[in-house]
Amino acid sequence: MSQNVYDQQEFFESYIKLDRQVRGLAGAPEWPQLKAMLPNLDALNVLDLGCGFGWFARFARENGAASVRAIDLSERMLNKARSLTNDEKIEYERADLEELRLAENYYDVVFSSLTFHYIANLPTLIKEIGKSLRPSGHLVCSIEHPIYTAPSRPSFVVDEKTGRQFWPLDGYQDEGLRSTNWFVERVKKQHRTVGTYIKMFLNNNLQLADFTEWYPDEKELELHPSWESELERPTFLLIGAIKR
Amino acid sequence: MSQNVYDQQEFFESYIKLDRQVRGLAGAPEWPQLKAMLPNLDALNVLDLGCGFGWFARFARENGAASVRAIDLSERMLNKARSLTNDEKIEYERADLEELRLAENYYDVVFSSLTFHYIANLPTLIKEIGKSLRPSGHLVCSIEHPIYTAPSRPSFVVDEKTGRQFWPLDGYQDEGLRSTNWFVERVKKQHRTVGTYIKMFLNNNLQLADFTEWYPDEKELELHPSWESELERPTFLLIGAIKR
Repeated sequence: MSQNVYDQQEFFESYIKLDRQVRGLAGAPEWPQLKAMLPNLDALNVLDLGCGFGWFARFARENGAASVRAIDLSERMLNKARSLTNDEKIEYERADLEELRLAENYYDVVFSSLTFHYIANLPTLIKEIGKSLRPSGHLVCSIEHPIYTAPSRPSFVVDEKTGRQFWPLDGYQDEGLRSTNWFVERVKKQHRTVGTYIKMFLNNNLQLADFTEWYPDEKELELHPSWESELERPTFLLIGAIKR
Repeated sequence: MSQNVYDQQEFFESYIKLDRQVRGLAGAPEWPQLKAMLPNLDALNVLDLGCGFGWFARFARENGAASVRAIDLSERMLNKARSLTNDEKIEYERADLEELRLAENYYDVVFSSLTFHYIANLPTLIKEIGKSLRPSGHLVCSIEHPIYTAPSRPSFVVDEKTGRQFWPLDGYQDEGLRSTNWFVERVKKQHRTVGTYIKMFLNNNLQLADFTEWYPDEKELELHPSWESELERPTFLLIGAIKR
């Protein structure tokens, strides 16, 4: 059973104030690059894993998707998502992605935003995704970058001599549970290496098509000067893959 | 023109004492994983980029390769390589990989060990490799891992409180020249992100087949306790790709 921090009152109240919740996809800086990895959605069957407030599900329907099945573990998230649309072709569903089983050869697109790094039993989920995609179907996902999830103390250190900040990387090869504080204490994440993610995809007939380690461009840095630290180490990894 | 540090007396005298020069492939800890990425070499035409003393060229011939073209910039390395074999099917050649042009649709295997991170104009070289490989041909290569090449001060820092060591990652997105000291001062390397390497391959019809961030296993750690730091951050990235 996955941890369900999203249904904790304290977490939820902070989480919904994030720019990417208030403004949706437009508030997620990595969205333009992730969007560019998607095929034309017209008439496609879409699965959204970790749908949150349903921003992507609604985007997919606005862009012609025939249907969207949108899954989340959090009842609060799903209630909010349901309140934002009455589109009958979006099916919201509560399920634990650790245990999800999918029909074979059914979806054209599987999308997942910043969810896979919470899933302990990811090999099984990726296997289900591989099976459930039609030939030439797309998996498009974002995860927290392994460089971001690895460290035992994941915050920048300022070098006293130079004033330069660096990211104290350790434990990169030590895959598994990381416990961090994010609005509340002990949010559980799963660290995996880049190689482990890539091989999980390749082993399930998901051929790599895109791979982007997000960073802000000059315009974004002008608007958000604090994002400059993103140039020192990546936070988000975006991957596109195609079913063989 | 590439930097040719290998032909500097001081560098060369230290370099030839490395385990991987004295013992050849058996002295390179990442060799078993790199070898596993190779196809059966029987009757294949092989190109080795940055061949050094020719350890791989001789291995390829011992394993049935029809021919090996082995290229290096260093005259000293090539002279030593030539002295170690009289196999007429190994053709040693001095060339600058920055400027190499290759015949189309000719090689079955292109191999390159720890060389690409010295090449400034790598996009052109990868384009040439993509062109020169036959359909279903293999590119198998190792590079210094981007996590290893990125930092402005690439050496471990010991945390005074915990005694734990970490790798001071910075400048990950700042691609380009890095100048390091390795036997001699100012050895020039090129830092690129993982994403840049992967996209360079994908853009040249080289489909990812393998991706390994090398680390020592328990047996190797017993023999070489100092390699434990490899678990904190990877040094070597091994990539296998197949021409579409």
